[in-house]
Amino acid sequence: MGAGRVIFVSAGPGAADLITVRGARALGTADIVLADALADPALRDLAPQAQWVLVGKRGYEHSAKQTEINALLLKATQEHAVVVRLKGGDASIFGRLEEELVALAEAGVASEVIPGVTAAFAAAAHAQRPLTRRGRGRNVSLTTAMTETGELRAALSADTEVFYMAGRQLATLGAKLIVAGWPADTLALVVSRAGCADAITSEHSIATLADAAPLHGNCPTVVTVGTGAAPVQGQPHLTPASKIVVSPEQAPLTTQSRS
Amino acid sequence: MGAGRVIFVSAGPGAADLITVRGARALGTADIVLADALADPALRDLAPQAQWVLVGKRGYEHSAKQTEINALLLKATQEHAVVVRLKGGDASIFGRLEEELVALAEAGVASEVIPGVTAAFAAAAHAQRPLTRRGRGRNVSLTTAMTETGELRAALSADTEVFYMAGRQLATLGAKLIVAGWPADTLALVVSRAGCADAITSEHSIATLADAAPLHGNCPTVVTVGTGAAPVQGQPHLTPASKIVVSPEQAPLTTQSRS
Repeated sequence: MGAGRVIFVSAGPGAADLITVRGARALGTADIVLADALADPALRDLAPQAQWVLVGKRGYEHSAKQTEINALLLKATQEHAVVVRLKGGDASIFGRLEEELVALAEAGVASEVIPGVTAAFAAAAHAQRPLTRRGRGRNVSLTTAMTETGELRAALSADTEVFYMAGRQLATLGAKLIVAGWPADTLALVVSRAGCADAITSEHSIATLADAAPLHGNCPTVVTVGTGAAPVQGQPHLTPASKIVVSPEQAPLTTQSRS
Repeated sequence: MGAGRVIFVSAGPGAADLITVRGARALGTADIVLADALADPALRDLAPQAQWVLVGKRGYEHSAKQTEINALLLKATQEHAVVVRLKGGDASIFGRLEEELVALAEAGVASEVIPGVTAAFAAAAHAQRPLTRRGRGRNVSLTTAMTETGELRAALSADTEVFYMAGRQLATLGAKLIVAGWPADTLALVVSRAGCADAITSEHSIATLADAAPLHGNCPTVVTVGTGAAPVQGQPHLTPASKIVVSPEQAPLTTQSRS
C-alpha cells in the first residue's frame, strides 16, 4: 500500500482513563498500534481490532533504539492504512516526537498529533497543589534534569519547576538546586505513578530530597519544586507519617457508565 | 444536605473531545456543573442530567468575580451531592484553582482534581512542532506574560517559552522579549483556538510578532517562542501566504463510533 498515515496519540501519564476522548477514538480506528511499554495495559481495550506492537522505552531503559522505532513506523505505514503511535504523557513533552516526525516528513507520510496530559499536571491534580498561584506563581518550567550524557543540571528559572526523569538522582538534584540558588528549605513534592490508582506522593525540602528515593523506588517520578509544591491555604502539609498517599482506586476503563 | 463534594474537571483547550475519558465520566456523574464560559457547548452532551451554570471568564473579561464563584461553589455543595467545576485547559495551569481549593478547604468540603490538556500542548500538536527537542530543547516554560496590574513581563528562562493570555499585547511581548535577550529573529509560533476545528496558526519572528494580531483577533491565543516554535527537519516553514491553517473538521462529540 504505502499510503498509510500516522496518528500520534498521547496516552497521558499512566492510567488509561487519562487519555483524551479524541485519543481514545483514534485508537478505535487503528489498524496497528506501536506503543510505549509504559502505557496502561487497559488502553488495549480501546483498540481490540488493532495489532499491538510494544516498541517504547520503559523507565530508564531504551528497549528499542529510536532508529528502530522510526523504521518500524515507516514499515507499518506501508502495510496499514491507520497507524497509531501511542506515547506516554503528552507527545510534545519529552516524547521524542521530533525524531519520528522527521522520519515521516522525509518519507512523505502524513501525520496527525493528538495532545495529552503530562505527568506534571497529573501530579499537581493528585496532590491538589496547582502549578500556578495568583501573584506569586506566574510561570512553570517543565524540564528534564538530565543531559544526553547523563549529566544532571538544575537552575532557578521559574516560580515552579517540574523535573522529569530525575527519580534516580534525587540527592544530586537537591544539591544542584541549592547551588543554583534555591533556598535549602524550598519545598519539593515528589509524585510517582501520577494519575494511577497506586500513585505515591511525598513532601520534602530540596535539602532532604534524597529521603524520597526509598519511598518511590524505580517508579516514573516527577519532582515539583517551588511555589507549586506547597499546599494551598487550609490544606495540610504531608507529615512524615502521612508521606505515602494512595489515591482511591479508579474504576476500570471497561466499565463505562455512559453507553 | 451540605455533604456534596466537588470534582474539578479540566476540559482541555476548547474542542470537547480533548477532555479526558476520566473527565467525561465525572461529568456523567454530576448533579450540577459550574462551567467556564469558554468551554465547548458540546461538553454539555456529557452531562445532560446535570444543571448547568456558566460562571467563568470569557477571554479577558471577568464575567463573575472569583469570590462570587467561590460562593456559588459552596452553595452548590449544600444543595447537590456531586458538583463538577469545569475549567478550560488544565485546572492547575492558570486556572485559578488555588482560590477555589482554599474556599473548599476552609469549608471542609471534599474535592478531587482531574487533569487535562493545556493550550500549549494543543498548539504544539496542531502545528506538529514538539515543545522539547533532543539536545537543544530540554525545558519548556509555561508563563503568563501579564502581572495582576496588567503589566507585561518577559524573560529568557527556557529553551522554549509559551506565553498565555498575551494575545492583545503581541507587539509589546515581542519588544520585551528582545530586551530580555532573545535574538530578534527568534521564531514565534502563534496559535489561536488550539485544538479546535477552526484553529489558526501563524509563524513570525519576535521582531514581527505584531503582524499576528490581525490574524488572530480576540481569540484565546498562545505564543510559543524559541526552539519549540521551529518546524522539525523536513517540515515546511509557514510562508506568509500559508500563515492561516485551518485544521480538518473534527467529528462532533455526539457521533462516537465506539458504543
